[in-house]
Amino acid sequence: MRTVVPFDPRDPKSRLAEFFADAEERRGFAYAMLADVLGAVRDAGGDPVVVATAPVSRPVDAPVTVDDRALSTAVAAAIADGPLPTAVVMADLALATPDAIRRVFAASGDVVLAPGSGGGTNVVLARTADVPVSYHGVSFRDHVTAAERAGLTVTTVDSFRLAADVDDASDLVDVFVHNTRRTREWLIAGGWRLAVDDGTPTVVREPND
Amino acid sequence: MRTVVPFDPRDPKSRLAEFFADAEERRGFAYAMLADVLGAVRDAGGDPVVVATAPVSRPVDAPVTVDDRALSTAVAAAIADGPLPTAVVMADLALATPDAIRRVFAASGDVVLAPGSGGGTNVVLARTADVPVSYHGVSFRDHVTAAERAGLTVTTVDSFRLAADVDDASDLVDVFVHNTRRTREWLIAGGWRLAVDDGTPTVVREPND
Repeated sequence: MRTVVPFDPRDPKSRLAEFFADAEERRGFAYAMLADVLGAVRDAGGDPVVVATAPVSRPVDAPVTVDDRALSTAVAAAIADGPLPTAVVMADLALATPDAIRRVFAASGDVVLAPGSGGGTNVVLARTADVPVSYHGVSFRDHVTAAERAGLTVTTVDSFRLAADVDDASDLVDVFVHNTRRTREWLIAGGWRLAVDDGTPTVVREPND
Repeated sequence: MRTVVPFDPRDPKSRLAEFFADAEERRGFAYAMLADVLGAVRDAGGDPVVVATAPVSRPVDAPVTVDDRALSTAVAAAIADGPLPTAVVMADLALATPDAIRRVFAASGDVVLAPGSGGGTNVVLARTADVPVSYHGVSFRDHVTAAERAGLTVTTVDSFRLAADVDDASDLVDVFVHNTRRTREWLIAGGWRLAVDDGTPTVVREPND
């Protein structure tokens, strides 16, 4: 299944700015997550296509098209332009596995949604071109409401691995615990490790030897 | 299936202290979530049993036993004491649905685990009495490792609804978006509502009229 993966190669994961040494390192992290998402999509039988807000500066193992419009606009255009069904999977789902993505591909409904934590929407599968797309605000609720208003059937996939987008430092704990691809290794190579601080897991960085 | 729900009636959800007016209101919130979890367990075909750290001060729709030991100790004892299989479901899983809990009950394996966000473990299903239990630190990783060392088969249920424990104010957004039982109504009755602040969903409180 055609699977669009929106990606911001310029200033990705800005809420993690303090966690990384500089923007270039932060971009490296974003590219590692992107590679994992593309691999999981492909292993699930999907054909990933990256829709980037700017030309990519590193190798990406999928066709890349550039669309510098807002996320919702670019995604709606990608759905309208392409063959159906089309899935849309966020580029920061570092916990995504082929099994989790297969559950999306296999779900019925005009629209299949996987919620993201914090009211968001991390995966949209569109089986018709007129699926309303809006990632602003409480997007999961809005996607459900808009799709039902349009007379479309909606199915939800209840997946932690698809809900856990990596937005802030606390999310990195789950990357360490649950990622089995490149992102975890990338963090380890950079000197990060999982620690427990007063009973609470956290990710800390130690100088490389 | 016998389902143990550990509950702290004295100082629950202490990380939400600043969100509520006082400890009594915070307890009210915890009891609302507990009621939702018990309802979801029962609707999934489970028989809930509350294991509380102290006597409960409000009506609870399930048998209550008091065990004031540490969480891991009390849960291990509850598994060892009771008929098998026994499931253990955290009391703050306000997003839990019967469907999500049924997936746990239906999963095979000596041990079935549902991860909690941040490295935790939110559901344990034990089919043997010697399932190692430790909620400290990176408990999901530790549960998997300890069970495999003990020669037990481990199955994981990938569920956002079971991963999303309610620990801090940002988690309340998901209660508003995804809870369909008592907790959301409890928040609304208390004057809280979902708002969008600069594109980011948040939960705010407004004075009651």
